[in-house]
Amino acid sequence: MKYCSNCGDSLVRRIPEGDDHMRFACDGCGTIHYQNPTMVVGTIPRWEERILLCRRAIEPMRGLWTLPAGYLELGETVSAGARRETLEEAGAVLGELSPFALFDLPFFGMVYFMFVAEMTTPEFLAGQESLETRLFTEEEIPWGEIAFGVIEETLRRYFSDRKKGRFEFHMGEILKGAEIN
Amino acid sequence: MKYCSNCGDSLVRRIPEGDDHMRFACDGCGTIHYQNPTMVVGTIPRWEERILLCRRAIEPMRGLWTLPAGYLELGETVSAGARRETLEEAGAVLGELSPFALFDLPFFGMVYFMFVAEMTTPEFLAGQESLETRLFTEEEIPWGEIAFGVIEETLRRYFSDRKKGRFEFHMGEILKGAEIN
Repeated sequence: MKYCSNCGDSLVRRIPEGDDHMRFACDGCGTIHYQNPTMVVGTIPRWEERILLCRRAIEPMRGLWTLPAGYLELGETVSAGARRETLEEAGAVLGELSPFALFDLPFFGMVYFMFVAEMTTPEFLAGQESLETRLFTEEEIPWGEIAFGVIEETLRRYFSDRKKGRFEFHMGEILKGAEIN
Repeated sequence: MKYCSNCGDSLVRRIPEGDDHMRFACDGCGTIHYQNPTMVVGTIPRWEERILLCRRAIEPMRGLWTLPAGYLELGETVSAGARRETLEEAGAVLGELSPFALFDLPFFGMVYFMFVAEMTTPEFLAGQESLETRLFTEEEIPWGEIAFGVIEETLRRYFSDRKKGRFEFHMGEILKGAEIN
């Protein structure tokens, strides 16, 4: 961030009056440009004993497996965003969404919010951002080929809860080293 | 948003290739400027039968009552942000945080995430952004003077769960008309 998006002037980095964080500020028009974490929303789509994973067609982590998830759009609810990503990346339609986990990724400036949901039919496809989409039993999960630490952690907690027969709402922090990238 | 924060050129509004949303785009340097919802994180601080509210010293809604909450900062976890806001606005130190609710405010481009937490001592004060801070029983809550619809909804669900003796994780959407402002 170098220029003011409001007036085009050069930005400076300083602590505004009454604040205690360094911000990008414009001395031309007085705008303070705050930067905040971005939400990523996604789902664990289930069909009977199996869950749906997508093999990424795009970087980063092209060729590795992930759950359907993506950036929450402005004007969209968290659950609508999670449904949209599941439809776009995996062509799957979901029933009721149950909140499953919130993961902080402070080094990446991201907060992941994941739901569990039943697929309404066993229909799915590979969306534009997926090379392949497939249902997996727990034994079939390609643990060595999961794209992101946060997705691996989501899957581990999901299968652990399933064994206990009780789903809880999870919170956790994904440390930088836990991400493959 | 009028100018590119990367190169200072004028921005245009268009749907980038492979996208399906209108974005602010720079034809000079090629940067796409995505806009995403902002997270607001806060708490319901409890001391025995009472909960802690703050009377706002700042606009919007100066003079009305609210729970401690504010924007999540870059590099901060959701729970760390909620603790920080509670300390800054109400001078209260919290024990373990329990996730309580996620509320979407799509018209405001916000997602609220609220925790319930016991105060570790009955000590509190009015922070810089508060005129006054006070513990309230349910009967004492100033329902007609709550600053925001999302805070009123949080309080109603909290007292409803307390009556049932069981706290659940809540999700909801706050419609534009439900906000006082």
